[in-house]
Amino acid sequence: MEELKKQVYEANMLLPAYHLVTFTWGNVSGIDREKGLFVIKPSGVPYEELKPEDMVVIDLEGNKVEGSMNPSSDTPTHAELYRRFKDIGGVVHTHSRWATIWAQSGRDIPAYGTTHADYIYGNVPCCRDLTKEEVESAYELETGRVIASHFEQNGLNPKHVPCVLARHHGPFAWGKDAMEAVHNAVVLEEVAMMAWHTEALPETQTRMNLPEYVKEKHFMRKHGPNAYYGQKK
Amino acid sequence: MEELKKQVYEANMLLPAYHLVTFTWGNVSGIDREKGLFVIKPSGVPYEELKPEDMVVIDLEGNKVEGSMNPSSDTPTHAELYRRFKDIGGVVHTHSRWATIWAQSGRDIPAYGTTHADYIYGNVPCCRDLTKEEVESAYELETGRVIASHFEQNGLNPKHVPCVLARHHGPFAWGKDAMEAVHNAVVLEEVAMMAWHTEALPETQTRMNLPEYVKEKHFMRKHGPNAYYGQKK
Amino acid sequence: MEELKKQVYEANMLLPAYHLVTFTWGNVSGIDREKGLFVIKPSGVPYEELKPEDMVVIDLEGNKVEGSMNPSSDTPTHAELYRRFKDIGGVVHTHSRWATIWAQSGRDIPAYGTTHADYIYGNVPCCRDLTKEEVESAYELETGRVIASHFEQNGLNPKHVPCVLARHHGPFAWGKDAMEAVHNAVVLEEVAMMAWHTEALPETQTRMNLPEYVKEKHFMRKHGPNAYYGQKK
Amino acid sequence: MEELKKQVYEANMLLPAYHLVTFTWGNVSGIDREKGLFVIKPSGVPYEELKPEDMVVIDLEGNKVEGSMNPSSDTPTHAELYRRFKDIGGVVHTHSRWATIWAQSGRDIPAYGTTHADYIYGNVPCCRDLTKEEVESAYELETGRVIASHFEQNGLNPKHVPCVLARHHGPFAWGKDAMEAVHNAVVLEEVAMMAWHTEALPETQTRMNLPEYVKEKHFMRKHGPNAYYGQKK
Repeated sequence: MEELKKQVYEANMLLPAYHLVTFTWGNVSGIDREKGLFVIKPSGVPYEELKPEDMVVIDLEGNKVEGSMNPSSDTPTHAELYRRFKDIGGVVHTHSRWATIWAQSGRDIPAYGTTHADYIYGNVPCCRDLTKEEVESAYELETGRVIASHFEQNGLNPKHVPCVLARHHGPFAWGKDAMEAVHNAVVLEEVAMMAWHTEALPETQTRMNLPEYVKEKHFMRKHGPNAYYGQKK
Repeated sequence: MEELKKQVYEANMLLPAYHLVTFTWGNVSGIDREKGLFVIKPSGVPYEELKPEDMVVIDLEGNKVEGSMNPSSDTPTHAELYRRFKDIGGVVHTHSRWATIWAQSGRDIPAYGTTHADYIYGNVPCCRDLTKEEVESAYELETGRVIASHFEQNGLNPKHVPCVLARHHGPFAWGKDAMEAVHNAVVLEEVAMMAWHTEALPETQTRMNLPEYVKEKHFMRKHGPNAYYGQKK
Repeated sequence: MEELKKQVYEANMLLPAYHLVTFTWGNVSGIDREKGLFVIKPSGVPYEELKPEDMVVIDLEGNKVEGSMNPSSDTPTHAELYRRFKDIGGVVHTHSRWATIWAQSGRDIPAYGTTHADYIYGNVPCCRDLTKEEVESAYELETGRVIASHFEQNGLNPKHVPCVLARHHGPFAWGKDAMEAVHNAVVLEEVAMMAWHTEALPETQTRMNLPEYVKEKHFMRKHGPNAYYGQKK
Repeated sequence: MEELKKQVYEANMLLPAYHLVTFTWGNVSGIDREKGLFVIKPSGVPYEELKPEDMVVIDLEGNKVEGSMNPSSDTPTHAELYRRFKDIGGVVHTHSRWATIWAQSGRDIPAYGTTHADYIYGNVPCCRDLTKEEVESAYELETGRVIASHFEQNGLNPKHVPCVLARHHGPFAWGKDAMEAVHNAVVLEEVAMMAWHTEALPETQTRMNLPEYVKEKHFMRKHGPNAYYGQKK
């Protein structure tokens, strides 16, 4: 667990390094699937004061197992995502500017280029708003439920679409561990910024969208069984 | 008073750190309510040369009580805000880019997301222009009067709406002390940037605005009597 | 002259510090009116290699008087501005992003707020394009002539309007010395960025423009005979 | 070859310095025309870990000649550009934000100002999408073929137009060596950012485009036989 705390701490510290957070508006978690426990940032602690030992350990029902501080208020969302998306090992939530702008606009982010296609297969989905009942009962838990249901109802695979926009709120991203989750959050921010300006350019040709075979090619050359990007591991 | 001078100095130094000012276009003050005195930045002094002992002490009528330098030219605005908003302990004024853009556009900033709702209940209001008579008589004092009257006439609570746009001019923000005032000025800048792009994105769904129950939930989970964000104090 | 070289060198080094230049796309000069000589950056020398002794001394006819390097290719523009605007002591030219965007758009920058009014009385003017004959004969000299004629024909006072947009090219700014010229170039960039977004915001209220009496008040409280901004000198 | 490896390494390290890359989304190569060998960045290696000895040596057929790592996955594109554009000595590919936005928008970047005209004669062209067959056979090679054919079919001279947009993908730039290629990639990014905002400004006058004689003048004063910008070499 100490190893995992250290990694989750380091992944959290990447959020200010990549300019994804203002103040404490973000949190990263990572899970040990064998133990069924995940580690998450404490709530409201400034990044400049954060230490590895401040990380809080939570079980899959969302109960605190270890740690002296309150976990992130978004903990029930993380727990729900770990329960529903069996293959993910890390989750990140931020209010990063460009992804949040799309979330506030209530729109999916279309795949306009190969930067997007290299990491995300198809649109970045934007979920529905929560109902009044959902908000007033168990807000953070329901946020996770709305995300997971959106993926199930639309046949989306969380390994192919490693991020989502919580409507009127902001982005969540995930990956095989906390580090990859943050990596995907950075990709999302970059893709969101470029998609915004691709659409808003006068006389843009976005109606002639990215061809399906380019999406296939780019995602597969990085993530498919015959991926040839990078060095052999 | 030396303690307050030090805090107000440090709050002023956060303005360049958070990229809220160019040159000397900003100032922060903080008040000691028991003594009825507030401390403010001197006028036109570059941040890199500013020292805690340069801070100027002012009474609630706006008279200089202590200090060798001229106080900020916006001092009468700060004094008026302290007189009219009894619960605030710090005030900040800047020409930060995104908030100033909305002020120049003459528009309130609508609440498009939870980042906004976490700190500001409802729109960030944009006041009316000053009249010719107001500008030519006691410009900076009248600026404060227009702000305070706008809040009173519209039934706005300065604790729920900790910032305002002075039309064609720029933002003022406040809080329980100088540090929280600067915190709210940073929030405003972030919210203003994201609201601008939320509106200007083609096919944005902003007409389906942030539901009232989300505004309630987010403001209250951070600022209500049962707030559960952060660590217990 | 060594003192002036040092000041012009330092003013040049502020251009990268304020993010106004990419590569060598900028230059600052400063004049000694008694001697009738001005000092300017050498052409195409990277800022990280620039030294005070590299500065080139030029007379008001534009001839090199001292210095081992070629002066900036824009030297004849600077010389013309010094000849026509008798009261200015420093000139700066850059391709800074936001001012250049307005220059490329062929539009004056309207005064939308007090940030603008604090330094610039009325619009930042955008000059006409040079004719084919002007470009092919003495391009840089004609650039200065077009600027100065624009001011004369439109009754503009270079002390009240300390900057201009050379159409399809970029900004020039000036001031009482090289340092103030750079200061005004920074103001222009800030004002240009905010004016762009003031106009492009949906439902902006810019048609209800900055009242004339606010322009008067703000320019005069900083630059008029009874200016009360800053410390007594 | 060791000298070339060092230069190509340094040119690669300029990409993060000029904020042209996120993660490993970029690569630079440089060629030794006498030996018919070029040197390129290895695939997927983070810039902070990159060393001169990691550079990979490739022949003009695209075969690896020396090096322990896999070359950039874009190597066949570089090889094709070296085969077809006989005068170029360095090539760079990035996903830099503003150039990529134009590539995703499927539009040429028009010459709106002298910043553009100083380096690029006429539009920055945006190529057609690759066909399904091209993508599925030899994707990266075909990317180079589409670029080179676009230049040939449109009578474009790679020395006068030192960059291109691969549609839905991102920019390629080149120059007499790896360093000049990166220089041109920086210019392209700057020009792309300013052209976007030149077009999107309300009431922009871009229809009165940059006159032909200004394009001629600016390109030639920097790159023509009688160039007079900079110092004599």
